[in-house]
Amino acid sequence: MIPLEDSPVTRDGKALILAYDHGLEHGPSADFGSVPETLDPEQIFEIGTHDAVTSLAVQKGVAETYYPSYDDSVNLLAKLNGTSNLWTGEPYSPQNWTVEYAAEIGADAVGYTVYSGSNHETEMYEDFRKVQEEAHSEYDLPVVMWSYPRGQGLKNDTKESVIAYATRIALEIGADMAKVKYPGSRESMEWAVQSAGEMPVVMSGGSKVSDYEFLSSVEAVMDAGGSGLAVGRNVWQRDDPEAILDALEQVIFEDATADEALDE
Amino acid sequence: MIPLEDSPVTRDGKALILAYDHGLEHGPSADFGSVPETLDPEQIFEIGTHDAVTSLAVQKGVAETYYPSYDDSVNLLAKLNGTSNLWTGEPYSPQNWTVEYAAEIGADAVGYTVYSGSNHETEMYEDFRKVQEEAHSEYDLPVVMWSYPRGQGLKNDTKESVIAYATRIALEIGADMAKVKYPGSRESMEWAVQSAGEMPVVMSGGSKVSDYEFLSSVEAVMDAGGSGLAVGRNVWQRDDPEAILDALEQVIFEDATADEALDE
Amino acid sequence: MIPLEDSPVTRDGKALILAYDHGLEHGPSADFGSVPETLDPEQIFEIGTHDAVTSLAVQKGVAETYYPSYDDSVNLLAKLNGTSNLWTGEPYSPQNWTVEYAAEIGADAVGYTVYSGSNHETEMYEDFRKVQEEAHSEYDLPVVMWSYPRGQGLKNDTKESVIAYATRIALEIGADMAKVKYPGSRESMEWAVQSAGEMPVVMSGGSKVSDYEFLSSVEAVMDAGGSGLAVGRNVWQRDDPEAILDALEQVIFEDATADEALDE
Amino acid sequence: MIPLEDSPVTRDGKALILAYDHGLEHGPSADFGSVPETLDPEQIFEIGTHDAVTSLAVQKGVAETYYPSYDDSVNLLAKLNGTSNLWTGEPYSPQNWTVEYAAEIGADAVGYTVYSGSNHETEMYEDFRKVQEEAHSEYDLPVVMWSYPRGQGLKNDTKESVIAYATRIALEIGADMAKVKYPGSRESMEWAVQSAGEMPVVMSGGSKVSDYEFLSSVEAVMDAGGSGLAVGRNVWQRDDPEAILDALEQVIFEDATADEALDE
Amino acid sequence: MIPLEDSPVTRDGKALILAYDHGLEHGPSADFGSVPETLDPEQIFEIGTHDAVTSLAVQKGVAETYYPSYDDSVNLLAKLNGTSNLWTGEPYSPQNWTVEYAAEIGADAVGYTVYSGSNHETEMYEDFRKVQEEAHSEYDLPVVMWSYPRGQGLKNDTKESVIAYATRIALEIGADMAKVKYPGSRESMEWAVQSAGEMPVVMSGGSKVSDYEFLSSVEAVMDAGGSGLAVGRNVWQRDDPEAILDALEQVIFEDATADEALDE
Repeated sequence: MIPLEDSPVTRDGKALILAYDHGLEHGPSADFGSVPETLDPEQIFEIGTHDAVTSLAVQKGVAETYYPSYDDSVNLLAKLNGTSNLWTGEPYSPQNWTVEYAAEIGADAVGYTVYSGSNHETEMYEDFRKVQEEAHSEYDLPVVMWSYPRGQGLKNDTKESVIAYATRIALEIGADMAKVKYPGSRESMEWAVQSAGEMPVVMSGGSKVSDYEFLSSVEAVMDAGGSGLAVGRNVWQRDDPEAILDALEQVIFEDATADEALDE
Repeated sequence: MIPLEDSPVTRDGKALILAYDHGLEHGPSADFGSVPETLDPEQIFEIGTHDAVTSLAVQKGVAETYYPSYDDSVNLLAKLNGTSNLWTGEPYSPQNWTVEYAAEIGADAVGYTVYSGSNHETEMYEDFRKVQEEAHSEYDLPVVMWSYPRGQGLKNDTKESVIAYATRIALEIGADMAKVKYPGSRESMEWAVQSAGEMPVVMSGGSKVSDYEFLSSVEAVMDAGGSGLAVGRNVWQRDDPEAILDALEQVIFEDATADEALDE
Repeated sequence: MIPLEDSPVTRDGKALILAYDHGLEHGPSADFGSVPETLDPEQIFEIGTHDAVTSLAVQKGVAETYYPSYDDSVNLLAKLNGTSNLWTGEPYSPQNWTVEYAAEIGADAVGYTVYSGSNHETEMYEDFRKVQEEAHSEYDLPVVMWSYPRGQGLKNDTKESVIAYATRIALEIGADMAKVKYPGSRESMEWAVQSAGEMPVVMSGGSKVSDYEFLSSVEAVMDAGGSGLAVGRNVWQRDDPEAILDALEQVIFEDATADEALDE
Repeated sequence: MIPLEDSPVTRDGKALILAYDHGLEHGPSADFGSVPETLDPEQIFEIGTHDAVTSLAVQKGVAETYYPSYDDSVNLLAKLNGTSNLWTGEPYSPQNWTVEYAAEIGADAVGYTVYSGSNHETEMYEDFRKVQEEAHSEYDLPVVMWSYPRGQGLKNDTKESVIAYATRIALEIGADMAKVKYPGSRESMEWAVQSAGEMPVVMSGGSKVSDYEFLSSVEAVMDAGGSGLAVGRNVWQRDDPEAILDALEQVIFEDATADEALDE
Repeated sequence: MIPLEDSPVTRDGKALILAYDHGLEHGPSADFGSVPETLDPEQIFEIGTHDAVTSLAVQKGVAETYYPSYDDSVNLLAKLNGTSNLWTGEPYSPQNWTVEYAAEIGADAVGYTVYSGSNHETEMYEDFRKVQEEAHSEYDLPVVMWSYPRGQGLKNDTKESVIAYATRIALEIGADMAKVKYPGSRESMEWAVQSAGEMPVVMSGGSKVSDYEFLSSVEAVMDAGGSGLAVGRNVWQRDDPEAILDALEQVIFEDATADEALDE
C-alpha cells in the first residue's frame, strides 16, 4: 500500500473523487439526457476545479483531449478500465489505457474496476496485478480499486458481508484505496472499513437522490471511519453542483453533519 | 486526441474518406459484381486522386500492392482490422496489419472497427488500446474508429441512443475521429455529434441510394455538426464517380445544400 | 505484395508447386498406401528436381531431415502450418515452424493455410498477419496462401463466389500468391483471377484423376489467367511422375493445350 | 528442489506456517466474525513473532502494508495466488503478485496453490512452472505448494490415494515443500510422505477443532514422517493463541505427544 | 532432425529409455503400490545405471532433486510435459519445465507428449514447435516425441493406420525420435517405421506382462526396423529389474531373439 497521505488525491487523508466515466459505462442518452450540458466534458472539468474535489476520474480519451487545459487545477485519477452496457454475459471490464500512457498524460493516481464473484474474477485479478505492480514499481502511483462484487453467483451485491468482502479483497490483493457501494447502514459500513485494515475506503455515490438522503449517507460513511466519497450524478445532475460540493466539503473534510451542511 | 486539423486526412477540419475494403468484408461477387471494373484496385486509386477525397481506406495487401504508385496523390488511411462475412458468431474483427507495418507503407492515419455490444467487445477494446497507444506514441498517427455497435444484445443498431453511444465510446476510449451509421434524422445526428465532444464524427455511406437521397443525408450530417463522410459504394458503384465527388465536395467543404450541389 | 518475378519460386511468372504434406494432413495409410514408395520423402525430393517444378512444399521435419541434400536442386516452399485429420471441430491449422526457422533451413518462400469461414477465421488472420509481416520485413520471403474457405457456415466450398472470395481475401490481407480449389469452369476461374488484382493465383491439384481430365483443368486455369498449379497426388501417385511433369511443363510454361501436351 | 534446511522458513527441517489469507479466500465475515480482532492484520503479525512460527503466509496487499514493520521478527511466505469464494466454476486460482514483487518486499519463500483434478489443472501447472523456475533461478527462493486436488472429477479429496497423489505431484513438478490436507490416519499420512521422496510435507490445519483433536492430528503427522503444519484458524480463532503455539512447538520441534504438550 | 547417432541417448543408433513419470501420470497408489520401494526415485536411478539403459525419462522435480547424484552414470531425458489423471476432458498435457531449465540441470535430450486427435491438438502442436525449435536452435538437444493419438474422434488408438500416422506426424513436425504404442503385429510396426522415414521409432512398454510376451514384442519391434524401447513398469515392477534389463540388452543391442535372451 502506498500511503495516500503523501498523494495529491487526498487531503488530510480524505478523498472526494468526482467520477465522469458514465458516457462509456451507461451511454450519453441514459446519464446525460436530463442535463444535456453534462455531455460536454469541459463542463465537468470546470466543476472539478472546486476545492472540495481531490481528483477527477475519467477514461483515456476524455483525459487526453481535455486534461491538458486543467492539469494545474485538477488532479487526474485515470480510470484505466471500463466497458459499455450494450453486451450481456458475466461481468468483465477491459483495460483501455496502460499505466504508462496514463502517467504520460499526467495521472496522479489510477483506478481499476474488479468484479469479484464474476466468472471472470480470476482474469480480472491478474489484470489488476499487472496494473498495480506497474503503478507502484514504475510510476509510484496509487491504485484505487472500484471493488464491485457482481456475477452469476451473487444475489444481493450490497449486503454487509459482500461489501466487507469487497474492501478486504482490495486490501489483500494490493489496492491503496477501495471504492465500494454503501451497504445500507452505518454499522455495516463500519464492518467494511475495519475489514480493510489501514487501507482507506470511499463510498460510491450511485444514482441521484435528494440532498438530505445523499448527505446523510455520506455522513454515515464518515462516522463509520470511511475516507470519503466518489460521486458523479449526485453532483453534476444537480442544478447547482457547486452548492452540493460546498456541503460535501463540510461533511467530508470538516466533520459536519448532513443537517449542518445543509443549513449553511 | 490528436487534433486532425494538422493531419493530411482532413481539409479545413472536414473529411471525405473513400472506403474500399468491401472485397474483404463482403466479397467480390457481392459488391463488385454490378460494376466489374471496381474489382481492380487501380480504378479506385484513380478515383481517390479526386480533390474532394481526403483519404483512401484500404486493407494491407491492397495498400502494399497499389499504394506505392499513388503515395504522392492519395492519403492512405490504413484500415487495420477486417474480416470476411463467411463465418457466424458474435462480431469480432481481427487485426490484419500492425501500426508499424502501416507506418512503413506510408499510412497517414489508421482505421479500426470496434463492435461495442458484441460479446467480444472487451477483447476489441483491448485490441483498440494497443493500436491507439502505438499509433499516438510511436508514430503520431491519428486513429479513426469505425464505431459500430452490433451483437446479440442489440436489436436496432442505428437508433439515436445507439449512435450517440457509438460516438461517445470513440471519444472515451481515445479515437481521434468516429465513423458511424446515420441515425435517421438530423436531430439524432446532432445528439451523436454533441456526445463526441471535440472529436469529429463522419457518417458511413452504406449501400447505394439515389443521388438526391444520398446527398441529402450528407447535408443533414454537415448541418448537425458532423465533419464529413466515409463512402464506398455510393461513389464507385455510380456510372460517374467524378460527378458525385464534385457534388460531395460542395456539400462537405463548401456548405452547399444537396439541391445546390446537384444543380451545378 | 512481393513481386514473384524476382523469386526463385516462379519462372516467367508461372509456378508449379509440388506439394508433399499429405503425411501430416491425411496420414500415410490414406495417401501413400497405393504407392508405398511415396512414403519415403527422398523419392519426392528426387521428383522435385524435375525442371518443371518451381518449388517443393513440405512441413518442417521433412525439410529439416531431407532438404540439406537437395538445397542446390530444389526450391523450398516451407509450409508453415498444418494439422492431422484425426480431430473434429471448426477448421484451424496450427503453425509448426516459425518463419525464422524456415529461413535458417533455406526456405525460398513460405506457405500458410487460412480457413476463411471457420469460426476460427479471426485467429487465423492474426496468425497469418504475424507470418506475413515477419516474412516480408525480416526475411524478404514471399508468402503463398492456401486460401480454403471452410467451416460451419459454408456449404459448397468450390462455388464461384467462394473461390473468388478466397483469392480476394488473399490479396486483401497481404499474400503474394493464392492457392485455391478449381471452381469448376474456366469462367469462374477467370472471375477468381480478376478478383485477385495483380496477385498471382494457382490451382490446387486435389485427388487423382485421369491424365486428360487433370491437364484440361490446368489448361483452363492458364487460359483464365491463372499462374500455375500446386500438385501432389496427381504427380506422385502416378506410375510415371516424370511424364506428367513433362506434360505439365508444356501446359503451364509453353502455352500448350492438354491435347498437345499428351500427344507429345 | 531447494533444500529447506538452509532456508529461514524451517528450523531443524521442521516448519510451522501461520496462514492468514482467509480474508481473500473466505471473506472477513466468515472467518473473522467470531473473533473480530483477527480482522486486523497487525494482530496476526504479532502472533507470528512467536518462536514456534517459522513463517507467516499472507497475500500481497497485507504483506506490502504490514510486513515492513515485522521484517526482523517474522519470516514472510508470500502466498502468490488466491481467489474469493464468490464465483462458481471449476477451481482455479489467479496469481496476485509476481515472484519479483514478492522478493522486493522481502519474501523468504513463496507459496502457490495447485488444484490438480480441476479442468484448469493444465493451466495451473503452467502457471506453477513459471513461478517455480523464476523463484529458483532468479531469486533462490523455495516454493511451497498448496497441493489440493479438487474439481469435477473428484469426489473425496482427502482419501489416501488422493493425498499421496497430491504430495507426489508436488515432488514431480518441482515444489520444495507440499502442504496437504490430513488423509485421516497416520498410515495414510505415511504413504503420502513416502510418495514425496525427499521433499518435506506439512499438514494443512483446516477449520477449528478441540485442542486435543488438533494436536493429536499434528502428532500423527510428525510420527508419519511429516515436517510440520500450516495453521490459521486453529491458532488465531483461539482465546489464547500463544498457548496453542507453545503446545505445537513441543509436538513439532521437540517430539512431544499431544498429551505431553497439553499437560505442560 | 538431429542425428541421434551423435547423441549420448542412443548406442549404435538404438535406444532403451527407462521411463519413470508414472507418479505424475497415474499417481503413486496406482503404479507404485505393488512394489512400494519404487516410490523412491533413488531406487529407479540405481536401476538406470544399468549398461542397457541409454536414458532415464523423468519430470522436473525428480530430476532436480535426484539427478545431481547420478549425472555421471545416467543420461537424462527431460520429460517436459505431463499431467495427472484426476481431471476429465479432451487430452492435453501442460509443459512443466522449460528447455532452458532442463538444459541447466544437464538434460541430454527432451521428451514431449503430443495427443494428435485431441480437440487440443492444435495447441499441442504449437507448444511442441516452441520446444523443438528452442531445443534445436539454442541447446542442440534432440527431442523425443511421445506420439499418442487420443481424443474424442478416435476409437482404437493402436490400430495400424493410427500408429503409422503417429510416427509420421512426429517426422513431419520435427521430432528426432518417436515413442509409440505397439500396433499389435510386426507388419503393422514395419509400416509405422517406414512412415517415419529416417527418424528412429521406439515402442512404448505399457503395463506389465510376462517376460516372454514382453521380450517377444520387443523382438518384433527390432525386426520391424524399430530402434528400441521405452519401458517403465515392465522393468521396475519386476522382482529382478537387472535380469530383464540383461535380456533387453541382448534383444535390442545384440540382435538376440526373445528365446535366446531368456535362455541365457
